[in-house]
Amino acid sequence: MTTPGHTTSVPDNRVAILAHEKFPDRSKTANGVLRYADREAVAVLDRDRAGERVADHLPDVQDAPIVDSFAAARDHDAVDGIDELLIGIAPIGGGFDESWRADVQAAIRAGCDVTSGLHYFLGDDEGFASLAAEHDVTLDDVRRPPDDIGVAEGRAGEVDAEVVLTVGTDCSVGKMTTTMELAAAAEAAGIDTAVVPTGQTGIVIEGWGTPVDRVVSDFTAGAVEEMVVAVGDDHDLVLVEGQGSIVHPAYSAVTCGILHGTAPDALVLCHAHGREAVHGYEATTLPSLASYVDRYESFAAPVHETEVVAGSLNTRAVDDDADARAAVEQFGEEIDAPATDPLRFGADGLVETIR
Amino acid sequence: MTTPGHTTSVPDNRVAILAHEKFPDRSKTANGVLRYADREAVAVLDRDRAGERVADHLPDVQDAPIVDSFAAARDHDAVDGIDELLIGIAPIGGGFDESWRADVQAAIRAGCDVTSGLHYFLGDDEGFASLAAEHDVTLDDVRRPPDDIGVAEGRAGEVDAEVVLTVGTDCSVGKMTTTMELAAAAEAAGIDTAVVPTGQTGIVIEGWGTPVDRVVSDFTAGAVEEMVVAVGDDHDLVLVEGQGSIVHPAYSAVTCGILHGTAPDALVLCHAHGREAVHGYEATTLPSLASYVDRYESFAAPVHETEVVAGSLNTRAVDDDADARAAVEQFGEEIDAPATDPLRFGADGLVETIR
Repeated sequence: MTTPGHTTSVPDNRVAILAHEKFPDRSKTANGVLRYADREAVAVLDRDRAGERVADHLPDVQDAPIVDSFAAARDHDAVDGIDELLIGIAPIGGGFDESWRADVQAAIRAGCDVTSGLHYFLGDDEGFASLAAEHDVTLDDVRRPPDDIGVAEGRAGEVDAEVVLTVGTDCSVGKMTTTMELAAAAEAAGIDTAVVPTGQTGIVIEGWGTPVDRVVSDFTAGAVEEMVVAVGDDHDLVLVEGQGSIVHPAYSAVTCGILHGTAPDALVLCHAHGREAVHGYEATTLPSLASYVDRYESFAAPVHETEVVAGSLNTRAVDDDADARAAVEQFGEEIDAPATDPLRFGADGLVETIR
Repeated sequence: MTTPGHTTSVPDNRVAILAHEKFPDRSKTANGVLRYADREAVAVLDRDRAGERVADHLPDVQDAPIVDSFAAARDHDAVDGIDELLIGIAPIGGGFDESWRADVQAAIRAGCDVTSGLHYFLGDDEGFASLAAEHDVTLDDVRRPPDDIGVAEGRAGEVDAEVVLTVGTDCSVGKMTTTMELAAAAEAAGIDTAVVPTGQTGIVIEGWGTPVDRVVSDFTAGAVEEMVVAVGDDHDLVLVEGQGSIVHPAYSAVTCGILHGTAPDALVLCHAHGREAVHGYEATTLPSLASYVDRYESFAAPVHETEVVAGSLNTRAVDDDADARAAVEQFGEEIDAPATDPLRFGADGLVETIR
């Protein structure tokens, strides 16, 4: 299998995850890696929570101590074998916070590779680049797109696999999580499955992929098509991680390019319970949930007919399980498709639906 | 007025336009500049048509001799004052054809600036860059996007001007031409009008703009919003040049980003008579013309309500004027809006419609 786009470092690395002042509520990449990656987390770096543990906040992912610095992570690590420092947070704008510099430098000096999904490329930082060269470690900027992406040729619809794309009512509603939960459940059911990662967290978890939001806009569909074509004949099921939303004032271009470039056989519509306006663009009210089904299907149709076959509801904001079940049921009725919260209630039913 | 994006060279330059082997049927940029730019065309370079004249092929644009090389253009020019060589063609992929190198070198040696809308940047070609430095001329790559573009903030809808966006059923159906004809007719009617150029030809003609198809995909809407906001309070009418099509397998991302980023008050739907499938993607049949009205309006609505108020039909493929009028009439009926072919029948009626 050729894997176009980015290829990241060793999947079973022992990793320290930097999430200063953001864990766990604003550390999407850190949480995704703790939950889904094969990496073993040695520690999470968050100077606001040093002394606590991951399990205090996220009981259902791998546990690790929370420490205040990379040096403390090394002190904490009995076997002294940290392979990698991962930047597990992405501030708005994707910039580098100078308060992280000492940790990155300490990691490089300790012989660790450093992986980052920031818009700010560590490899273009002369201080980091020269230090990394001196210590013979790799700075892995997963958001740097490859140079050889081109325009879509309309070929993704021809692959042998069933291709399923997660789409959303907004950003941060659970498309990456739904994709990963579906993949795990499908593999458990014996289905030969590939995930096509389109964002930095997915790329870090899967070890390959193209950050579609960073490619030249003319190549948005082409970047996804290339990935679907690369894996689509070698698997029975291909799950493509969607991005953004078809009604997003800023990011709809990426959403739409992925939809046409993927040429999916089926869509899973993801939503976060209680979300009523576009996050960060509160003037834009979300249209009715039912209308999303029509929007995604009719937008896709001229290029490749598809349909919303299932829904995935993020019920994190709902405390009570019975209430969450009721919310899922209502969501399924509104979009006229079977629905679940895959994180809360499992994804087995979804797998049955998309087979 | 701040003009974000690219700013090109002097608008009243005396220009030689390179269009080797492509004039006039595949020289979109050359034709647009001959028709709409303030530049005076000294000559068109096309080695296949040397000795002919522009007027032999395009009777309704400024005339110029066609010559086989830049050297011949200089010989031909009585006043010996060519200021600029413009690359007037864009091969698929946007590459540089090595057969043009001698002309570009001769222009630089003659003290001419060189303007190009190719994906291949002349300024990154070491041979051209050093020669240009030696002769103190500018290499102007209009497709190089500025570095400081960011994500859209949803502000374009707040500007004082009436904002009109041209949208299309496909690529190359007349969106740029319609925008320019509308601008001329609006100015002639005494309306203070600004054009927002989003592609290389429009940028060359207007002398500023951002090549939206070259920006980072996350910034597609932001690139257009920035331009609309920059001019939107200083004019009564803003005409935004659209790109691609909402059903295009490769370029819909750019189309959709422009639609949400522009937040237009009205849309003009452009179509080329006889087009039945997406150009270059013949497997993708165009949906009904009426469906485009709904597609564009419903896609835009959650961010900014808008409607298709007029149609622009390119009837170049129709010889007879009466047949062309009938085609325009039928097009107007199908989209349920007033329509014309602005190049053939004028744009005055369109201006009345969008006021």
